[in-house]
Amino acid sequence: MPTPVKSVLPVVLLGCGGVGRYLLRHIVSCRPLHANQGVAIRVVGVADSSSLLVAEDVHSTGLDDALLTQLCAAKSAGSPLSSLLGRGHCQLFKNPEARGKVIDAATTLGRTTGLVLVDCSATYDTVSLLKDAVDHGCCVVLANKKPLTGAYEDFQKLVSNFRRIRFESTVGAGLPVIASVTRIIASGDPITRIVGSLSGTLGYVMSELEDGKKFSEVVKTAKSLGYTEPDPRDDLGGMDVARKALILARLLGQQISMESINVESLYPSELGPDAVSTKDFLESGLVQLDKSMEERIRAASSRGNVLRYVCEIESAGCQVGLKELPKDSALGRLRGSDNVVEIYSRCYQSSPLVIQGAGAGNDTTAAGVLADIIDLQDLFQTMA
Amino acid sequence: MPTPVKSVLPVVLLGCGGVGRYLLRHIVSCRPLHANQGVAIRVVGVADSSSLLVAEDVHSTGLDDALLTQLCAAKSAGSPLSSLLGRGHCQLFKNPEARGKVIDAATTLGRTTGLVLVDCSATYDTVSLLKDAVDHGCCVVLANKKPLTGAYEDFQKLVSNFRRIRFESTVGAGLPVIASVTRIIASGDPITRIVGSLSGTLGYVMSELEDGKKFSEVVKTAKSLGYTEPDPRDDLGGMDVARKALILARLLGQQISMESINVESLYPSELGPDAVSTKDFLESGLVQLDKSMEERIRAASSRGNVLRYVCEIESAGCQVGLKELPKDSALGRLRGSDNVVEIYSRCYQSSPLVIQGAGAGNDTTAAGVLADIIDLQDLFQTMA
Repeated sequence: MPTPVKSVLPVVLLGCGGVGRYLLRHIVSCRPLHANQGVAIRVVGVADSSSLLVAEDVHSTGLDDALLTQLCAAKSAGSPLSSLLGRGHCQLFKNPEARGKVIDAATTLGRTTGLVLVDCSATYDTVSLLKDAVDHGCCVVLANKKPLTGAYEDFQKLVSNFRRIRFESTVGAGLPVIASVTRIIASGDPITRIVGSLSGTLGYVMSELEDGKKFSEVVKTAKSLGYTEPDPRDDLGGMDVARKALILARLLGQQISMESINVESLYPSELGPDAVSTKDFLESGLVQLDKSMEERIRAASSRGNVLRYVCEIESAGCQVGLKELPKDSALGRLRGSDNVVEIYSRCYQSSPLVIQGAGAGNDTTAAGVLADIIDLQDLFQTMA
Repeated sequence: MPTPVKSVLPVVLLGCGGVGRYLLRHIVSCRPLHANQGVAIRVVGVADSSSLLVAEDVHSTGLDDALLTQLCAAKSAGSPLSSLLGRGHCQLFKNPEARGKVIDAATTLGRTTGLVLVDCSATYDTVSLLKDAVDHGCCVVLANKKPLTGAYEDFQKLVSNFRRIRFESTVGAGLPVIASVTRIIASGDPITRIVGSLSGTLGYVMSELEDGKKFSEVVKTAKSLGYTEPDPRDDLGGMDVARKALILARLLGQQISMESINVESLYPSELGPDAVSTKDFLESGLVQLDKSMEERIRAASSRGNVLRYVCEIESAGCQVGLKELPKDSALGRLRGSDNVVEIYSRCYQSSPLVIQGAGAGNDTTAAGVLADIIDLQDLFQTMA
């Protein structure tokens, strides 16, 4: 006997680049698994930066799986969403109409069946849309860190109904960091400190340096392995780690902004993007940093410590940068590109709660987003 | 402006020994925190092995916080629940009437406001009550492992509506092990293997042995530190670890029972409770095990490995016992009484998802139970 459908979750996806595409694939391939649990995800619309592909009647149907599969293939090949027109019961809207159509869906579905807006983009442009959707009673799932790391008022607005938002994949991809912190808070166990290595790139760089390699060589190797952004300074500057730290700090109740976070960049402003091209930075800039890094590593080592690029969140404030840590701590033992987070609280006082594993990658990030969507199912129950 | 109450969760607590008492204390001390989130926990009844203290009108009120605080003090001092009669608007029922009264509450509340049955006892006796409650639409939260580790049909019945049951604290206390496994399953990421050190006692024993200490001495020290049960064979036999392994295996979909698990005991049957008293085991039995343990440790060490007492769950089956592991793995590096769990899946293939931290203790276990109760709030919404 097939399991009756207990929850139908209508979804509009914003952003169908890497993570978004993986998410659509996971949704399609998980249909039998979710059906067994009485859950159905109905993808009623998919938007990229220029247009929105939406089901003809968002109240009753979603984009069918064949179309979603074609959409993934099209985006993967670099084709626009408009190339899919005529392939199914769907409509296409270009910007600026596209945004209005998402609001339409949010308005009509938000107050009736409910709607989940899933943001897998990497832009600040979705914030106002997400805030409007929250006003209409919609749920929000984020892989995009930016809506949570802009103005504090935006964060506050988005999390105002905390049960209707999930953002696990903004910190450590699929690793259960946000879920664990949320559980600890809910149990009244006060979190005193979170320390984490939340950049796979910088984790790799710092553990390779320990073996005596040169900073410039390790960064170039990381780039050739695809671990860094096209311009490695996007990683070395620490801003991505700072965004994750800000999300954790705000989750702990700190009403702070990016400006309040002390961020140490691994390159000086003289070698920044405004002064030096990527090519020159890689060819002649990086090597200028080798000596000082070598000295810092040696000094740490002489005290039995290692250097890690971490974020530290305490009641006193939030820091992002290099820190000397004991060799035999969870962070000190870290090798390769894994993320690791240590959480200290009353229950985890002398010895922290540690969560470790792959904290990046489209597959893992999309898996975290999908788990978040499924976790909202109790708000979408169609029968008792 | 005070936050409006969005969810009222009526709770009946079974078992008010250590974990149950801590839970009541946490519920009382978290009132302001939960009120801020629009959540209220209403403790309508508390049962121990012989009686039930229940609110006069379970539909509208719970036992008040002053009474709950007195109840904790009374149980802590070894007084029976009956000593609390006359201290508030409550009634007392002795067994066998007590069970009938819980069923009454489950019947009337289960189909109206909803009811959460929280089992912090350590007995098989609650199983039939829990199954009846599930039939009446109640939710179940377990710290008690036994209801999930008896007959497979009982497990199946209890998890039949998977959104209405939580059992985080049955494995690794408050550590987010079940929550993480559930998230990974929901995202369609197939789990291929779970390996864990899930006994703080045996974790401590095995890491101390590494330093060259004698098995008999380490076990006696563990006992004197309060790490073991009064008869350390209750830990050394591995059955508690096997129960946790069974819960994880069943969560992964394996339809197995305790009999299917290969459990290695750290003492031979000639030194078992049927043959030798606790006193004799400690005074003359344990020392007979020193030599063989020392040889096994030395053999492992010669291969660069360490010995850990672990559970291993794979599709091929479920094992509990000593295992040689690389010194530099998460399990191999484990020191002291922390628990650690490694989860392998498609997303966590070469490098596992690792969760580590204190996996025992009344405070931590009760915190996990409370987080589970709060996690059910969307099923108890009183307004949109």
